[in-house]
Amino acid sequence: MSAGLTPQSLADRHRATLDTALDTIRTRGYWSPYPEHPKAYADAEEGKAAFEALLGHPFLFAAEQPGTDEWTGGERSPYGMELGVRYPHPDPDVLLPAMRAAMPAWREAGPLTRALVCLEILARINARTHEVAHAVMHTSGQAFTMAFQAGGPHAQDRGLEAVAYAYAEQVRAPQTAAWVKPQGKRDPLELRKSFTAVPRGIGLVIGCNTFPTWNGYPGLFASLATGNAVLVKPHPQAVLPLAITVSAARDVLSEAGFSPDLVCLAADRPGEGLAKTLAVRPEVRIVDYTGSTAFGDWLEANARQAQVYTEKAGVNTVVIDSTDDYRGMLSNLAFSLSLYSGQMCTTPQNLLIPRQGIDTEAGPRAYDEVVADLAAAVERLLGDDTRANALLGALVNPDVRARLEAASGMGEVALASREVAHPDFPGAVVRTPALVRLDAAKPDTEEVFMAECFGPVAFAVAVDSTAEALRLLRRTIRDHGAMTVGGYTTSPEVERQLEEVCWEECAQLSLNLTGGVYVNQTAAFSDFHGSGGNPAANAALCDAAFVAGRFRTVEVRRPA
Amino acid sequence: MSAGLTPQSLADRHRATLDTALDTIRTRGYWSPYPEHPKAYADAEEGKAAFEALLGHPFLFAAEQPGTDEWTGGERSPYGMELGVRYPHPDPDVLLPAMRAAMPAWREAGPLTRALVCLEILARINARTHEVAHAVMHTSGQAFTMAFQAGGPHAQDRGLEAVAYAYAEQVRAPQTAAWVKPQGKRDPLELRKSFTAVPRGIGLVIGCNTFPTWNGYPGLFASLATGNAVLVKPHPQAVLPLAITVSAARDVLSEAGFSPDLVCLAADRPGEGLAKTLAVRPEVRIVDYTGSTAFGDWLEANARQAQVYTEKAGVNTVVIDSTDDYRGMLSNLAFSLSLYSGQMCTTPQNLLIPRQGIDTEAGPRAYDEVVADLAAAVERLLGDDTRANALLGALVNPDVRARLEAASGMGEVALASREVAHPDFPGAVVRTPALVRLDAAKPDTEEVFMAECFGPVAFAVAVDSTAEALRLLRRTIRDHGAMTVGGYTTSPEVERQLEEVCWEECAQLSLNLTGGVYVNQTAAFSDFHGSGGNPAANAALCDAAFVAGRFRTVEVRRPA
Repeated sequence: MSAGLTPQSLADRHRATLDTALDTIRTRGYWSPYPEHPKAYADAEEGKAAFEALLGHPFLFAAEQPGTDEWTGGERSPYGMELGVRYPHPDPDVLLPAMRAAMPAWREAGPLTRALVCLEILARINARTHEVAHAVMHTSGQAFTMAFQAGGPHAQDRGLEAVAYAYAEQVRAPQTAAWVKPQGKRDPLELRKSFTAVPRGIGLVIGCNTFPTWNGYPGLFASLATGNAVLVKPHPQAVLPLAITVSAARDVLSEAGFSPDLVCLAADRPGEGLAKTLAVRPEVRIVDYTGSTAFGDWLEANARQAQVYTEKAGVNTVVIDSTDDYRGMLSNLAFSLSLYSGQMCTTPQNLLIPRQGIDTEAGPRAYDEVVADLAAAVERLLGDDTRANALLGALVNPDVRARLEAASGMGEVALASREVAHPDFPGAVVRTPALVRLDAAKPDTEEVFMAECFGPVAFAVAVDSTAEALRLLRRTIRDHGAMTVGGYTTSPEVERQLEEVCWEECAQLSLNLTGGVYVNQTAAFSDFHGSGGNPAANAALCDAAFVAGRFRTVEVRRPA
Repeated sequence: MSAGLTPQSLADRHRATLDTALDTIRTRGYWSPYPEHPKAYADAEEGKAAFEALLGHPFLFAAEQPGTDEWTGGERSPYGMELGVRYPHPDPDVLLPAMRAAMPAWREAGPLTRALVCLEILARINARTHEVAHAVMHTSGQAFTMAFQAGGPHAQDRGLEAVAYAYAEQVRAPQTAAWVKPQGKRDPLELRKSFTAVPRGIGLVIGCNTFPTWNGYPGLFASLATGNAVLVKPHPQAVLPLAITVSAARDVLSEAGFSPDLVCLAADRPGEGLAKTLAVRPEVRIVDYTGSTAFGDWLEANARQAQVYTEKAGVNTVVIDSTDDYRGMLSNLAFSLSLYSGQMCTTPQNLLIPRQGIDTEAGPRAYDEVVADLAAAVERLLGDDTRANALLGALVNPDVRARLEAASGMGEVALASREVAHPDFPGAVVRTPALVRLDAAKPDTEEVFMAECFGPVAFAVAVDSTAEALRLLRRTIRDHGAMTVGGYTTSPEVERQLEEVCWEECAQLSLNLTGGVYVNQTAAFSDFHGSGGNPAANAALCDAAFVAGRFRTVEVRRPA
């Protein structure tokens, strides 16, 4: 290591944070080392300027990547402007061997040094949160505050969480052990053993358009902390946040005396489908992917030389049986449907409501009333354009807009989507969510709501009963997967039935949320994101299973 | 639970053993709760009689399995006799749903009760060790003492080790957590969270012919302890040891108040290939397999609905550079090559020896001398027929015999295999190992020794230098996999180079074994069996990665 970042200086800065993270993944209380309020960061203007200085230029790393055969890019902000940044496109035959060559020294550094270096990388990214926030906003379409929080500190939390799990996992075997087996009256058999966590190879992170950092950091840091090199292949429309991330990682690795090529960026040529080429390379032994079910399934079937962790599509359901806080339920659901225009993998899609209505603290409400009241709650929440823009953000791409426009043909529109003008970005496509009434008893209706309709569309589905809702919930999770399940009930029996379905079908359940926590939000160190046990995802962010397969333990034994 | 096995009585009997196992998988010293000496078990005659009583009859469980559509069997002992036992063949459409129906109560019992029930099952199996030993001997062909130890206490150790890992993994998240997020001057956000380990579904254990219990128990107990039901599909020639195991498990489950159908047996019709049918059933979510590379690859490619853990073929190498205990090295290697006629997945196949010879404490030895001395050591070890029979056991099947007979055509025979007559079983095919000289520099020779030649055949391969041996070792592991690597050297530099190869290619290394520990033996709680990182196996027995994916954690959160 260079004088800049020594094991001691890294430990002084980060050891306590690592220890708290290790403690919190066991106790699962609230904790974050990264403040989530933009005002906690002094450099709002500098961060914005740093972002703007990147636009229209090639994105240069301090240490050039090996094997760059051309420069490519074509990001267009959902807020309307071209970013004009160009990124290195790799020749895999040059880049991948260079990355592999960087690995032995990283392996030899051991789990603790790797963890501390990762924490320094996260600290550098944290210091650039404003810059990253603008990059996330202008690639994902998230409104600024959300881009700041979800793309900044919350993503950093998920990265740190992965580092903590990776560290904990690697030190479960001791570095050395003495083995002494008694042999009766003869001398015992004695061996000296050493155990070394060794990496698998290169980890490929395939980024998504909507949450490039939040969904990218767990795999990136889990693979890096377990000794692997990491190649980041961002979504072609969301390269910049991950390019900044890779840049920070490369700087820190160099300063700590390691090869910067342990973390590299691979940008697609337009329409190239580079992920398909990289994912089946023999050097690539781990793949982390967030995106469509079709490509996730392709990766699982074809990238057989690698451990493949996927988060794919799902259909999220809320079962509405009864509530003792009707207003709270409505405003909570309204917020969940509106946040980032429903473009979260965790946004509820199907609200299953008994046809005969529900019980509330103010007496029964008919199905029609519940739907109308929810529509009104969404309208109230988004009635003011400034607030609407701050919550909704922009539609990430034309497909989402097309789906939204098609939604009114799928059923009876209870709440129509409306256009919201953005004061700063006239090119932004900002839309409020549509609420569509469906009746589960009608023919061919089930196919409509059991398919993922990603974007600002929710279905208020009339069902025969809560029991029928539970059956539909079970089938939805089993056949289509779910990242989240919500439930509202005052009945302990229904609560237990909801739990049973989620335990048996393996889905994460939020019950009776009426305040400031939403079904679509999870907190690192405490909540699991996805279960890894239903078709929506084969891994959870973040647990031991997410890291345990990224390295192997090699034992060397010799006579004592 | 019935009065027989209560949580308290189970804890009284097994909690201390579980705690010691949990401690030992962290410290990795020597430990076993199951004595390995046959004399430690009082019931030698009763055990043999119990085994003999099973022969020629249908194998009946105390509680009949659902969905048995016929009785099948056709085991012939490698020692010559027909076993004549018949086993239930399942109708999967009846059996698998019955097994699934048994799971909710087992999930609800929680990790600790599951672990304690598993320990009681292991205790029952341990009490039947003599019976199991005869069953292992007469299916695998192992000599009695080995069948007793490897098929009995050592297999039970591996089962207990899997239970310990499974328990540790499931309690890494707390059962409940309070989450309190400060909100500045406003009231904090507060949630109550619960975390439940939920099973994946049915675990299918596909047994092998040579080590039905040792290789079967880790997957069986890892899946069962994590809440899954387990269907055991033994090798058609090695059903009996696993039938006894399933019987013990069903008894204990019933006595503890659970459905016995949490553990079931599925026997093949002759030539049926039942594993192929079962492995792709949607109810089957975990597969544990030991056997050929071809079928292992098939499972990995096709059982896509399941987590697939495979141990396949590999090519094990010993690099001989130098030694300061030449006699010790020769006798250690002679024993490794002879034990169970080389029919262990861990038996060395290729001994890479520099053409110009090696240094020893008594001066240099030429390649020819080393080969001749090793041949003499094997002859000395096996010169007495009683001792030879006790070490070699019988060839498990005619394929092994055919390979052995073909081996003399592969190179120059340094030590010919000889027939050993068995005093009690004239039908047994008992053979000493053949040692064949090859020269790596000769054309087409590499293909010979780089293919697995399973059975009592070892190649003494002349190589240009130790450096060339290291290159061949690396290529062998990378392209063909290895369960074990051995090395003999007095040079710290060569030792380091051997370690580097094994760290980079992910193989378990034994250095300079000259005493009573052999490269082909691993001890539960301390040694990893396989690395899971080279083509020989995608999992190690037993580590956290082996259990972490067998269950998922489902979180339920609600306002506090």
